[in-house]
Amino acid sequence: MDEFKVIEIKKSVFENNDREADRVRARLKKEHTFLLNLMSSPGSGKTTTLKATISRLKDEMKIGVMEADIDSSVDAKAIADTGVKSIQLHTGGMCHLDAGMTEQGINEFGTDDLDLVVLENVGNLVCPAEFDTGAVKNAMILSVPEGDDKPLKYPLMFSICDAVIINKIDTKSVFDFDDDAVVERIKKLNPKAEIFFISAKTGEGVDAWCDWLKQQVNAWCK
Amino acid sequence: MDEFKVIEIKKSVFENNDREADRVRARLKKEHTFLLNLMSSPGSGKTTTLKATISRLKDEMKIGVMEADIDSSVDAKAIADTGVKSIQLHTGGMCHLDAGMTEQGINEFGTDDLDLVVLENVGNLVCPAEFDTGAVKNAMILSVPEGDDKPLKYPLMFSICDAVIINKIDTKSVFDFDDDAVVERIKKLNPKAEIFFISAKTGEGVDAWCDWLKQQVNAWCK
Repeated sequence: MDEFKVIEIKKSVFENNDREADRVRARLKKEHTFLLNLMSSPGSGKTTTLKATISRLKDEMKIGVMEADIDSSVDAKAIADTGVKSIQLHTGGMCHLDAGMTEQGINEFGTDDLDLVVLENVGNLVCPAEFDTGAVKNAMILSVPEGDDKPLKYPLMFSICDAVIINKIDTKSVFDFDDDAVVERIKKLNPKAEIFFISAKTGEGVDAWCDWLKQQVNAWCK
Repeated sequence: MDEFKVIEIKKSVFENNDREADRVRARLKKEHTFLLNLMSSPGSGKTTTLKATISRLKDEMKIGVMEADIDSSVDAKAIADTGVKSIQLHTGGMCHLDAGMTEQGINEFGTDDLDLVVLENVGNLVCPAEFDTGAVKNAMILSVPEGDDKPLKYPLMFSICDAVIINKIDTKSVFDFDDDAVVERIKKLNPKAEIFFISAKTGEGVDAWCDWLKQQVNAWCK
């Protein structure tokens, strides 16, 4: 007989979260609303990519953005300027969003009149990867300045994303970044990942990403 | 009136490990060993900065590096190539190091023959800021491509660091980065912070950072 008891706290936290996430997805399906969970490191260009995405898609679908941040409302202000509905979620120090927090956000936000809701998660390549938010699809951004070795160091994040956006390709001249190496590393972790090379700043490659996103929204909402 | 709403989702997961951290520091004081906790986002150049620092200081003091990563040993390999003692700590999914984990690392590593030990924390601007590792000083790196707004979005990290290194200044031509704005934002959070503008790649500004670090080590170890 064991002399001590082992309690799997982490496992039960994840199991509860998974049930909650499934509930969020079922509700979104009923509302014909697609939720995209967008993750990345701080400063990889989530908000700029989002602005470029909104400007291409806002005439075709109703879009809303939920901006999660530990503090500050700079991103929600930037998104509000694009004219789409936006809300700021303050996590009060938490490094990620879980399904319960996402549900709170959705309740306050009111998503049933929206086709696409983007959840901009906290800037972090670690914790957000562990919690299913209830999103229909997960996407992440890796920016060129961060380096092509990031899939080796943050494998879970790259494994759980349906789409990986490589941003800031306009800055390649000043960084050593190997496109083939990064694709190979991502595909090894996640063979089904869709990979898009873009510059949210210049617009290069953004159309292909938006086409993919539009397909996902249409498939879910039809 | 604001065009967006702010919701406070407050969930505290912070556990106080201050006592353990103080115990680590008392032990280091006895050993005449200085521990630096180095933090940043993924890809801001922690390892490259460390290599540039080691090459300048290794003839004057005995240096060791503890590399914390969720997975992989790419950084420890890079540091081992510089000829200093190094160890890789795998956090097994954890997004930060606390004092207990740091103590485990120190026990395994054996630090009493070293003057300076650098703890390269997990790439993350959120969680590592909440946990005192037992280090004598905290330093962080913000790289130019991440943007000058990061002190607004990750205030705790900027508040708890004794030194803030702004890295990759050689890439300024391709980014909008306002030096004065970033200094003002950091000083507002943390008036005593020492701020260094460097390029770990070209070596620009690295001497000033190393001079400061040397002073800190000498003051602690005398």
